Amino acid sequence: MADSPNCDLKSLSPLQLFERVTEQGEKVRALKAGKAPKDEIDAAVRMLLSLKLSYKTTTGQDYQAGLPPKDLVLINNGTTKEEDEDLVDPWNVQTSSAKGVDYDKLIVRFGSSKIDTDLINRIERATGQKPHHFLRRGIFFSHRDMDQVLDAYENKKPFYLYTGRGPSSQAMHVGHLIPFMFTKWLQEVFDVPLVIQLTDDEKYLWKDMTIEKAYEYAKENAKDIIACGFDINKTFIFSDLDYLGTSAGFYKNIVKVQKHVTFNQVKGIFGFTDSDCIGKISFPAIQAAPSFSSSFPQIFNGKENIQCLIPCAIDQDPYFRMTRDVAPRIGQPKPALLHSVFFPALQGAQTKMSASDPNSSIFLTDTPKQIKTKINKHAFSGGRDTIEEHRKYGGNCDVDVSFMYLTFFLEDDDRLEQLKQAYTSGELLTGELKKVLIETMQPLVAAHQERRKQVTDEIVKQFMTPRKLAFEF
Amino acid sequence: MADSPNCDLKSLSPLQLFERVTEQGEKVRALKAGKAPKDEIDAAVRMLLSLKLSYKTTTGQDYQAGLPPKDLVLINNGTTKEEDEDLVDPWNVQTSSAKGVDYDKLIVRFGSSKIDTDLINRIERATGQKPHHFLRRGIFFSHRDMDQVLDAYENKKPFYLYTGRGPSSQAMHVGHLIPFMFTKWLQEVFDVPLVIQLTDDEKYLWKDMTIEKAYEYAKENAKDIIACGFDINKTFIFSDLDYLGTSAGFYKNIVKVQKHVTFNQVKGIFGFTDSDCIGKISFPAIQAAPSFSSSFPQIFNGKENIQCLIPCAIDQDPYFRMTRDVAPRIGQPKPALLHSVFFPALQGAQTKMSASDPNSSIFLTDTPKQIKTKINKHAFSGGRDTIEEHRKYGGNCDVDVSFMYLTFFLEDDDRLEQLKQAYTSGELLTGELKKVLIETMQPLVAAHQERRKQVTDEIVKQFMTPRKLAFEF
Repeated sequence: MADSPNCDLKSLSPLQLFERVTEQGEKVRALKAGKAPKDEIDAAVRMLLSLKLSYKTTTGQDYQAGLPPKDLVLINNGTTKEEDEDLVDPWNVQTSSAKGVDYDKLIVRFGSSKIDTDLINRIERATGQKPHHFLRRGIFFSHRDMDQVLDAYENKKPFYLYTGRGPSSQAMHVGHLIPFMFTKWLQEVFDVPLVIQLTDDEKYLWKDMTIEKAYEYAKENAKDIIACGFDINKTFIFSDLDYLGTSAGFYKNIVKVQKHVTFNQVKGIFGFTDSDCIGKISFPAIQAAPSFSSSFPQIFNGKENIQCLIPCAIDQDPYFRMTRDVAPRIGQPKPALLHSVFFPALQGAQTKMSASDPNSSIFLTDTPKQIKTKINKHAFSGGRDTIEEHRKYGGNCDVDVSFMYLTFFLEDDDRLEQLKQAYTSGELLTGELKKVLIETMQPLVAAHQERRKQVTDEIVKQFMTPRKLAFEF
Repeated sequence: MADSPNCDLKSLSPLQLFERVTEQGEKVRALKAGKAPKDEIDAAVRMLLSLKLSYKTTTGQDYQAGLPPKDLVLINNGTTKEEDEDLVDPWNVQTSSAKGVDYDKLIVRFGSSKIDTDLINRIERATGQKPHHFLRRGIFFSHRDMDQVLDAYENKKPFYLYTGRGPSSQAMHVGHLIPFMFTKWLQEVFDVPLVIQLTDDEKYLWKDMTIEKAYEYAKENAKDIIACGFDINKTFIFSDLDYLGTSAGFYKNIVKVQKHVTFNQVKGIFGFTDSDCIGKISFPAIQAAPSFSSSFPQIFNGKENIQCLIPCAIDQDPYFRMTRDVAPRIGQPKPALLHSVFFPALQGAQTKMSASDPNSSIFLTDTPKQIKTKINKHAFSGGRDTIEEHRKYGGNCDVDVSFMYLTFFLEDDDRLEQLKQAYTSGELLTGELKKVLIETMQPLVAAHQERRKQVTDEIVKQFMTPRKLAFEF
């Protein structure tokens, strides 16, 4: 292909232009990966932008990776990212800012709605309970159709909750608890049933792991989830590998979703390529199906079309954008969503944490001493280089990981505000702030470990047995 | 793109050449579909051949649709076809010859082995039974690893049989019975268990049909299958939509296959495109999984790695080539295969029959009168135009559909040979040959209808209930 993009772009069809943009994007990535000279990369990026502009002029729409022009109207992708934007999908979260991902931009890009004061007040009125600090502090910050769920709830039409976890290892860290802590609160204040999916099949497909190992992790993770305090009479936890072989309704919904989603669409949404295995390509339907109550005939006593509400981290949204696109076409209600921010790594908010790096977070198995050492040694500080400078200019709570962790785990609003002011003014030193965090996390983790000890294999089995839940719709 | 393919082909990479060939192939198809002038089509075909030649010169390998050059070594596709070759895949069977598909060529292209006299004699020795006329007459003509199955069988290591049907409608025709008649014989003479898959999920995915309808057809078709006389104590019939939700082992094997097959591979094998739904793309794993005995823990009492033998029409081979490619990588034995020829349409052997055209075959619900009318009216004749010419030159059994049908359904070898000689010599007229066929088919269909009437819903339920089969491995 000629190197100048402008020579004959006008004569190209939208599809040809699409292919040019795709090729150039690949070239840019290859240059970056190969650490090519900066001016060479810059030139390639300029050409990419120029091609994208031509594409937009010709088609009237933004270029979207993996979505050729004829499919542009099929689904509102929203995962496309500009060069300077954060990358957020179920497998990658990347940002160049120490403050973490720009969530306001993400709301615009994903097309979701901000959880504002009005909505929080409405949840308070509907439940008669003080909103959870995750809501008050913007940790759950975005939603889809939560107002419709509340409309219905206020008219005595309840809903069920659905959340999940990919059991990639035995070790869960405190960040993994965020969706479960919040879901437990939702279950309590709305008094509704809950299904929790453990995607052991996904982990088998994505990782170098046997099926047996993935299933073992699922059961181990179930113990930590149960230790969050879910109501055994209103909660069903299931492993995909297990439940698919015991449910009359689950596979039927999976195959319905699979009929209504093309490879072009999952390519656009999840970035799959022709070299990906067909298990990955069809997996999104398996995460979609629990959004429909008919996937759980035993649980809901055969009742269909019950509204579903999904609390999850924002990186899972692509699955449910797809689900919401398909739902009306298979005669099902769209699931509503509540999105959380990412839990930052101890080293800083630039990336999502990894369960495979023991120093990237506080794990649920850590001893008090390990917690103390990790926080003192690894928690990224927003404090100044010297005590003198810190006293003079104060610390920066926006990038200080210890302070971020406290916003997640310190429930006392007044205390948190005091700490913020004292740290920002320079009155409180980094070491002192870390001490508060250590004193918060040590009893929290110890209490979790204590509760987890009570979770016997028998209790896990009960939670994982398909059965009618104690709720009438 | 320039119309002359030779201007700059040498400067193209293998991948670019691959894309040129693919585009040109699409152009040829579009011209043919649009009934373009013959010389325009011819020119496009010439260019296609020229591009393919360049591709072969550059890469040292034949162009294979859907398999870009880097993946050429991954799987031995075998479905590629030259312009003058027959087209055979699970959804299309096309040939330009009135004699039907050239099966010897197909064996070479698919890389299977011919069922020769030695193998037939060996089956006779192993079972102590006269070989079925489908074997003696080359109706089952090709195999994979049948000698290994016999090696093991002779050393007291038995196997299980697996066959299936896609329940696309309530109406089955006599051609649909071929694999089941033969499988019943195999079950009897080898005394082994059998699993029969009804791919109602496949039909839901491929056709404009509800899940409920597909499942209903599966149960209706099961009645016709049971009426073939299978041993209820050694036969398990299952609908995918049903069984996936009741088996602990089936989904695990499906997901194992799905992890080891890429989109590139199914594109190459089945011709899927980016616009196909993800259900179609992942379906081949569902047809593959019953080849592994661990998909049926109840049936085989948890016994794994039992050898599987699959009798099927040759168009199903692509599924099992894929299965055999994956099997060793997931620690499973490769299934062996016995391939049948296609059953010809009444109108001639150029195409496979269609259950949606009532006149294309004799249906299992036809009355004696309908059978008579169909054969007299629609069965393509290899006879001459006038009685005088026929007496003088004789008929052509190679293209005469009545004679072909008799090779399938008239068990008496001597009688068949007599008919062949009399027809070829001109002694027997077309009307007389048709009369023999009518008199063969009428009682055969009537007897089937009688047996089918005995198949109650309760019997279907028993066949379709997962249970230990009466056989010890």
